[in-house]
Amino acid sequence: MIKTKAYAALTAKTQLVPYTFERRDPKEHDVVIDIKFSGICHSDIHTARDEWGNSPIFPLVPGHEIAGVVRSVGAKVTKYKVGDKVGVGCMVDSCRTCPQCKQDLEQYCDEGFTGTYGVPERDGSGSTQGGYSDVIVVNEDFVLRIPDNLPLDKAAPLLCAGITLYSPLTHWKAGPGVKVGIMGLGGLGHMGVKIASALGADVTVISHSEKKRDDATKLGAKNFIMTKEEDAFTKNANTFDLIINTISSADLDLASYLGLLKQDGTMVSVGVPDKPIALNVFALIMKRRTYAGSLIGGIKETQEMLDFCSKHNITPEIELINPSQVNEAYERVLKSDVRYRFVMDMSKL
Amino acid sequence: MIKTKAYAALTAKTQLVPYTFERRDPKEHDVVIDIKFSGICHSDIHTARDEWGNSPIFPLVPGHEIAGVVRSVGAKVTKYKVGDKVGVGCMVDSCRTCPQCKQDLEQYCDEGFTGTYGVPERDGSGSTQGGYSDVIVVNEDFVLRIPDNLPLDKAAPLLCAGITLYSPLTHWKAGPGVKVGIMGLGGLGHMGVKIASALGADVTVISHSEKKRDDATKLGAKNFIMTKEEDAFTKNANTFDLIINTISSADLDLASYLGLLKQDGTMVSVGVPDKPIALNVFALIMKRRTYAGSLIGGIKETQEMLDFCSKHNITPEIELINPSQVNEAYERVLKSDVRYRFVMDMSKL
Repeated sequence: MIKTKAYAALTAKTQLVPYTFERRDPKEHDVVIDIKFSGICHSDIHTARDEWGNSPIFPLVPGHEIAGVVRSVGAKVTKYKVGDKVGVGCMVDSCRTCPQCKQDLEQYCDEGFTGTYGVPERDGSGSTQGGYSDVIVVNEDFVLRIPDNLPLDKAAPLLCAGITLYSPLTHWKAGPGVKVGIMGLGGLGHMGVKIASALGADVTVISHSEKKRDDATKLGAKNFIMTKEEDAFTKNANTFDLIINTISSADLDLASYLGLLKQDGTMVSVGVPDKPIALNVFALIMKRRTYAGSLIGGIKETQEMLDFCSKHNITPEIELINPSQVNEAYERVLKSDVRYRFVMDMSKL
Repeated sequence: MIKTKAYAALTAKTQLVPYTFERRDPKEHDVVIDIKFSGICHSDIHTARDEWGNSPIFPLVPGHEIAGVVRSVGAKVTKYKVGDKVGVGCMVDSCRTCPQCKQDLEQYCDEGFTGTYGVPERDGSGSTQGGYSDVIVVNEDFVLRIPDNLPLDKAAPLLCAGITLYSPLTHWKAGPGVKVGIMGLGGLGHMGVKIASALGADVTVISHSEKKRDDATKLGAKNFIMTKEEDAFTKNANTFDLIINTISSADLDLASYLGLLKQDGTMVSVGVPDKPIALNVFALIMKRRTYAGSLIGGIKETQEMLDFCSKHNITPEIELINPSQVNEAYERVLKSDVRYRFVMDMSKL
């Protein structure tokens, strides 16, 4: 067994604390990864506090934006070798046989993919534990290669925030001539602006915060809609082919935002509100609009995303912190007080 | 002016009563149509009672499922001649210049299409009045040709119920190998079953009423899901490529129905609830499902639909009544006590 240092939530009601536990010894197809950097995702907070009602297993080590270096590999590993720069995202396994897994869309696995933390391992050997730790053991099929030109600290958030935006942007064909709106400029949204711009789309940030206007432009957006302006929704009605909705609040006048879509336009939610959202169906019917959801991305497209970011030199804006600052960072994430992603330096554990 | 006999709602709070008014004399491009049959659509009731909050103009003559014979034509009419079998649906005009009109999707006109009843005429000459009358005057571009083999009484409901289902079924590519669910077996739903079956799709009716099971089969459905069965939603999860939702109630556990869709499946609402519906976004995100809306269809595709129904001998199931029974028919529609569409014989006015 591999002794592992970490930060964990011992219960849903307590702050994260230093914690040690043991990882399994590598099986034939496992890769042992020395974790160098670990991003903090809003989902980590929802899960550590059990706010989504999916009953994660405690003690819980969150973290699914993991970047590190291969320490050792199992006997039959062919994809990676010691010293490789690698990453792990939100999934560490899936059934591999259902229609979705066969299509490289493991995130939609019929049995439910095995999340990187808080769920039972498929072999029954306890629960998965995430990246707020110094080492992780993952089957090679769920390990990603981090291209050389991407620094590990900045690469970490690509494994969740990056793929969460890349997948819907490419699936719904953001590109030249396509008007894309990004709702919300946070950890997810700012990656959306960078990726959509690199794909050649005409990008607008849709935000309630005037303070984000300059950043939107710096990140690559051509336009900015300040939703608190009185005529924001009427003036910009029927404008977008595609809107990516990164706002996870249910207290949103969804129909007004849907009204920003052109005929046959699509809004894709990638954030999950903690309660149902009220939808006026008229907003869809009047222009044959669609409202969709998208969940991270498959392993194959996550590698494509990393290679795309390498080619276009895309990395997130990060604030590097020590693991001991994790609880403070959580509070700041909840106040949207981060530009735009916290990444922990796990060498400081 | 053309003296016209009709049934009208004088106010939103009163029953329909006999009413006479004058239609305009035909302009150069107008067709004067002797109305033979007029279908009763649930929308007529919503509008006559002003339940959608769109303030129709009273007195109001409802009716947008109109079948008749050309009485006379304006000087420059080229498309129709006296004696032709014709129909009029939900629209009698549109701006004709916006992107949607240019694409033959007048129903999504940027200025709002001119509805067949209850709205101002584009030339400022009063308000439109619908098909619960013995004659109507409509610009030739918004008149449809009814193929010879379709009887006029049964053709009438095609102009709304028929196109409302045909448009999303063809837009979202119902056809061989495609599993289609039709939610609700009423005036709209039963047309969906017939059209989707004729398109070659594998059709299932999804209903809360066991009484509809036999009809579903007779209409062409291969399967039937009785939603009140305890395991209906779990047993049939991830089944459909396309679901057409004809249920206009907002008191619906939408997430359960969305769960019936496969990965990348689409639900299309064609009924409009009178209040926002609660949507659990998880149901979309977990399989990249989409939820869309669709509104009737353009004039060009309405003609395509009529020709398709002619070719496949598709007509609705109707109950023929006299115009004097209209108020009683409304009450029965509200109780879903009609199989499946009331059509009024306007010769009995």
